[in-house]
Amino acid sequence: MIIVADNLRITGKSIAAAVDAADPFPVEDMVKRCLHAGARAIDINSGPLSRNPEKMTFLVRCVRNLTDFPLFIDTANPRAMAFGIDAAGKNGIINGVSLKPERLQAILPLAAESGADVVGYLLKEDGQVPESGEERMRVAVDLVQACRDFGIEAERLIIDPIIAPLSWSNGHIQNRETLEVIRRLPELIGIPVRSIAGLSNLTTGLSDPQQKQKWEAAYLPMLAAAGLDIVLMDVLREGLVTIAKTSAVMLDDGIFSWEMA
Amino acid sequence: MIIVADNLRITGKSIAAAVDAADPFPVEDMVKRCLHAGARAIDINSGPLSRNPEKMTFLVRCVRNLTDFPLFIDTANPRAMAFGIDAAGKNGIINGVSLKPERLQAILPLAAESGADVVGYLLKEDGQVPESGEERMRVAVDLVQACRDFGIEAERLIIDPIIAPLSWSNGHIQNRETLEVIRRLPELIGIPVRSIAGLSNLTTGLSDPQQKQKWEAAYLPMLAAAGLDIVLMDVLREGLVTIAKTSAVMLDDGIFSWEMA
Repeated sequence: MIIVADNLRITGKSIAAAVDAADPFPVEDMVKRCLHAGARAIDINSGPLSRNPEKMTFLVRCVRNLTDFPLFIDTANPRAMAFGIDAAGKNGIINGVSLKPERLQAILPLAAESGADVVGYLLKEDGQVPESGEERMRVAVDLVQACRDFGIEAERLIIDPIIAPLSWSNGHIQNRETLEVIRRLPELIGIPVRSIAGLSNLTTGLSDPQQKQKWEAAYLPMLAAAGLDIVLMDVLREGLVTIAKTSAVMLDDGIFSWEMA
Repeated sequence: MIIVADNLRITGKSIAAAVDAADPFPVEDMVKRCLHAGARAIDINSGPLSRNPEKMTFLVRCVRNLTDFPLFIDTANPRAMAFGIDAAGKNGIINGVSLKPERLQAILPLAAESGADVVGYLLKEDGQVPESGEERMRVAVDLVQACRDFGIEAERLIIDPIIAPLSWSNGHIQNRETLEVIRRLPELIGIPVRSIAGLSNLTTGLSDPQQKQKWEAAYLPMLAAAGLDIVLMDVLREGLVTIAKTSAVMLDDGIFSWEMA
């Protein structure tokens, strides 16, 4: 299981100010901290910045200067996505696409042209979260087909089943079913299609870091054991990274030693 | 998922001395601490005490005086088991039986006669741990049949797939397969047969409590998500109990609230 940092968000004040001032240091500082903490890829959540392609390019280049790891370009704005993927170069990943028709039409041509891998969210055509595991699996099949229609094979797709906030009335039940979805995706799609999940979603609405840690720490090993390939998470919470690494080592085929996590 | 304390062991010096002196207080103190920590059943590991039926009876009665929760009588000595089960009364559980012929012959008649539930270890006839998930499943089928031959239906069986120490050369791979065994047991046996696992086994050979916690904290939610019904664990490690409760709440069908774990 690969750890992707979700810490670089333009909604963070210091990052937004730095990008406005074309000051690379706060961005670099955050990325260095994430890499030091164990991130092996960085999600760049450009938020409102997406309206300004030059700033998007600046932000992504700041990160790319520091690492060759995959960069997930995380924006709903197709034009910003194009600039971000261009700035990321090799190992830029489109994050992402869903069955929403306007999103498919806007993003998949870019994916086809750039050759970048694509995160596919298991959301319904209207953008809503499916309410059951069965529904998520139907969406996955449709999404794979939509990608194929644009010449993008499932090998290039990374499926995000969408973790439900536990604060939703049936959130915990959805999340239990999502484990089964992750487990069954390779068989359903017919290839070992990759999966990704945003762990922070689980505790949306909860502010106490210790409380967040408690719930995320329990769900993370479940995701790992279900076969999740990539976890998007707050890598600056040390205990959580230890759990991710420990889970990954225990589930790996390699030789085990106590010192590995 | 129900939490069973593995803390009451006659190998603990204060407990052994207390039983020798027929002093109930150290035993009661330990049991109270376990119940306070969240244990909903107590495993009574009588160790060498098993050679002395009166002391066995004393120990089990000490515990029974404090709680109506299930008591797992954990001894390899059939005579001690008979005394322990008798002292435990209703809600005494035989821990346990395996395919070892002498064990089957000694324990199953007692189970048949007493009506107590029985823990069945997935060990081979020679007492060795099976090396693969497939082998564990074959053993499970044989064990269910052996119990049926004595008139004990699978509904009364609690299957322990045996967690392998991570220090074994293939321990982590066995444990990954064991998750699949737990998941498939109900389908394999044809009824929702219950499962139990001794979490402390995972870190046998490791002495640092923080290190133990790290590995057990990652494996415990995986066991819970696989469908484990009962976890036998050190309930006096607070963080671990929180993980067990948090996992159980997230996997439960009931209404969720942040305050439940």
